[in-house]
Amino acid sequence: MPRGEKQLNKIQHLGAALESGALAQVRRIINSDLQPADVAHILESSPPKERKLLWGLIEDENEGEVLQHLSDELQTWLLNQMSVQEVANAMTDLDADDVADLLQNLPNTVTREVLTTMDSQDRARVEAVLSYPEDSAGGLMNTDTVTVRPDITLEVVLRYLRRHRSLPDMTDNLLLVNRRDEFIGLLPINKILVTDGDATVREVMNTDVITIPADMEDSDVAQLFERHDLVSAPVVDALNGKLLGRITIDDVVDVIREDADHSLMSMAGLDEDEDTFAPAFKTSRRRAVWLGINLLTAFLASAVIGLFQGTIDQVVALAVLMPIVASMGGVAGSQTLTLVIRGHAIGHIDSKNVGWLLNREFLVGLSNGILWALVIAIVTYLWFMDLKISIIIGAAIIINLVVAAFAGALLPVLLKRMNIDPALAGSVVLTTVTDVVGFFAFLGLAAGFYL
Amino acid sequence: MPRGEKQLNKIQHLGAALESGALAQVRRIINSDLQPADVAHILESSPPKERKLLWGLIEDENEGEVLQHLSDELQTWLLNQMSVQEVANAMTDLDADDVADLLQNLPNTVTREVLTTMDSQDRARVEAVLSYPEDSAGGLMNTDTVTVRPDITLEVVLRYLRRHRSLPDMTDNLLLVNRRDEFIGLLPINKILVTDGDATVREVMNTDVITIPADMEDSDVAQLFERHDLVSAPVVDALNGKLLGRITIDDVVDVIREDADHSLMSMAGLDEDEDTFAPAFKTSRRRAVWLGINLLTAFLASAVIGLFQGTIDQVVALAVLMPIVASMGGVAGSQTLTLVIRGHAIGHIDSKNVGWLLNREFLVGLSNGILWALVIAIVTYLWFMDLKISIIIGAAIIINLVVAAFAGALLPVLLKRMNIDPALAGSVVLTTVTDVVGFFAFLGLAAGFYL
Repeated sequence: MPRGEKQLNKIQHLGAALESGALAQVRRIINSDLQPADVAHILESSPPKERKLLWGLIEDENEGEVLQHLSDELQTWLLNQMSVQEVANAMTDLDADDVADLLQNLPNTVTREVLTTMDSQDRARVEAVLSYPEDSAGGLMNTDTVTVRPDITLEVVLRYLRRHRSLPDMTDNLLLVNRRDEFIGLLPINKILVTDGDATVREVMNTDVITIPADMEDSDVAQLFERHDLVSAPVVDALNGKLLGRITIDDVVDVIREDADHSLMSMAGLDEDEDTFAPAFKTSRRRAVWLGINLLTAFLASAVIGLFQGTIDQVVALAVLMPIVASMGGVAGSQTLTLVIRGHAIGHIDSKNVGWLLNREFLVGLSNGILWALVIAIVTYLWFMDLKISIIIGAAIIINLVVAAFAGALLPVLLKRMNIDPALAGSVVLTTVTDVVGFFAFLGLAAGFYL
Repeated sequence: MPRGEKQLNKIQHLGAALESGALAQVRRIINSDLQPADVAHILESSPPKERKLLWGLIEDENEGEVLQHLSDELQTWLLNQMSVQEVANAMTDLDADDVADLLQNLPNTVTREVLTTMDSQDRARVEAVLSYPEDSAGGLMNTDTVTVRPDITLEVVLRYLRRHRSLPDMTDNLLLVNRRDEFIGLLPINKILVTDGDATVREVMNTDVITIPADMEDSDVAQLFERHDLVSAPVVDALNGKLLGRITIDDVVDVIREDADHSLMSMAGLDEDEDTFAPAFKTSRRRAVWLGINLLTAFLASAVIGLFQGTIDQVVALAVLMPIVASMGGVAGSQTLTLVIRGHAIGHIDSKNVGWLLNREFLVGLSNGILWALVIAIVTYLWFMDLKISIIIGAAIIINLVVAAFAGALLPVLLKRMNIDPALAGSVVLTTVTDVVGFFAFLGLAAGFYL
């Protein structure tokens, strides 16, 4: 039976065992049959009660591996229920970068206590990673590099490796350093396999290599990995060129997933790490904030309508039609906004081409404005048999779609300059603009015409 | 100078050379100094005019590598301007899976013509990949596997490899097959390096391996790679267990990026492959469709308001306040919808836990409904000094937030059952629901109270 099916079967067994309350069987499945990543996935997919039950059944020595595969939110929740000694035990077999990741979810005092329980080499490794921001190359790197000198032969390298009997996961290159620990190149391990043993490392090494400065942002690291199809890359100190560690694709994939989740979830005011199965109380509290912010902008839109109560009182059809103007503006604006936010995220948009983009969006807004203004004006005329109101709504649609295009294209740039995350604030601000402009244009024009 | 900086410098040089019209210099930079992936990135980031100019300067033998790194939309656009012979030349040095990817963007007749220009081995490889759907494991795999038999020693393997002198990119395992070409296990190449040469492959091979059936969906493949930190995985025929090829992480990263982009872009009615710098005309036409769909739902909402013209005529404050009810429902619903769509995409939500989720969302909707109903009722009272209208809007908010929670949680499931993409249709249908229910609840209650 292929491995994938076997796993699936075990997960179904687990479900059955859980339902029938056969806890001994559940314990065996989650500790021996399933891999830690699968157990983590099951925890993520379980409501709070089952989650607690399952976590209690995981044996101490497996806790670290499972924790490592959980989202930040769940890590924090579980770690904060553990004693310092339990946390320290759980981290025994993890890589330095994974330990650092976990510790970043704990209060500083606890982190310091956990560090004191480690042996000095492990502690030094973890502290090296912790000294960099979590979202930088340094925070993403691991220090488990296998380094060799360029002046030995491949045969010597092979003998050295056979004496050590293991290589860290995802080792596709050995890293070459000089006497001062400065990075000088890579020795792809495939090269060791296909080259005769009496060649020297220098003869086959690769020096045209992408090195990553420790202070590079993690999303830029992800772009380098994506663009150049890397499995691992060396991290160096930008000042002195010393080799600090290496970043591997598995951690980069997590960055890519997080960045993508961030864009998607932020647009709805959610955290990228949002726990799908968080308890109702916790979820309500968080979402309330976003609803509150939205309420402010909704009141602003209402205030604009309030200015024109007299006009609406005169022509009640205005009240019937006004949501159309706001909604079309909102949709058009959010298309531009989404495109521009994605373009920034994957590095397509910069100061050189943003002018062209703005111009294009203006043309798109104008042409779609004119097209839909005509359609809406005709439908309005057929509905209310009032030429004046048809012309007014058409004009308001054109105005709002053009403004929406500008707002959608410029907001991300402006918000970024103000150090506000465009993915988070963009859609609220945009809707405010398109609502206010839409209602103001439509009702304002009407007030002018009907006075 | 580190490689990253060097690349950046070259890209800046390119910008300067382009501006000053030094085309010979531009040609040198894009053909020799920059890597194909960087050139592809520059093309993606350029408006149409510069894009055409740059593409014209790329030498024929580099076209394939550059094409391979472009988005589907750009690939299609460029390929359709090339002759069959040019396409065939461009594909000479590409892997079978990349050739298949490119060919999928061409009309069938052209694909067949290009295939006839290839030698029979290459053609067979490409046809093997083309015989699977583009979004399946088979369409993602490459056929460049290095296979060995389990009964030889590592020394023999090493000698065999040294005779061949090269291994395909991202080879972290040799694949083991029996006489009938059935997959039986992996030999990690790291094992070859750290184990003594007289051990047999069978002694060190790994048989507890994740194998991927050729008909698995690409997003499921991506989940396996993410969860188990794979660099490559063997693809087998689900029926007879024969080894067909392997999938590598670089192609999986593209799938992850595409899936994530799909969720984000679909919510605004955009294609995940949307070209940031598509010409205005093309962009307008595409977005017009989405605006048209939205217009239908906006008219539906207007029709609901139209039912209550008489009531609004009596109490004009209703017109001022009604966008608040619709907007709060829309925001609350889109939070639930986004969470649920993400939860489905990463496999957290299934039939077992969806009931718990629905219940939680109901509680969240109800509690946030009550909270904000109170706030809105108070503000409304202070604004209009009308107790009746305050109670009415409060009740409408509670109704709409509860309905929004249900709609947000259930829509993805319902749409999926109808084979409609929830990421694409979800937000339109949701807004329709929250607009219609919001206006109906608010104005309907008002009509009842004021009659």
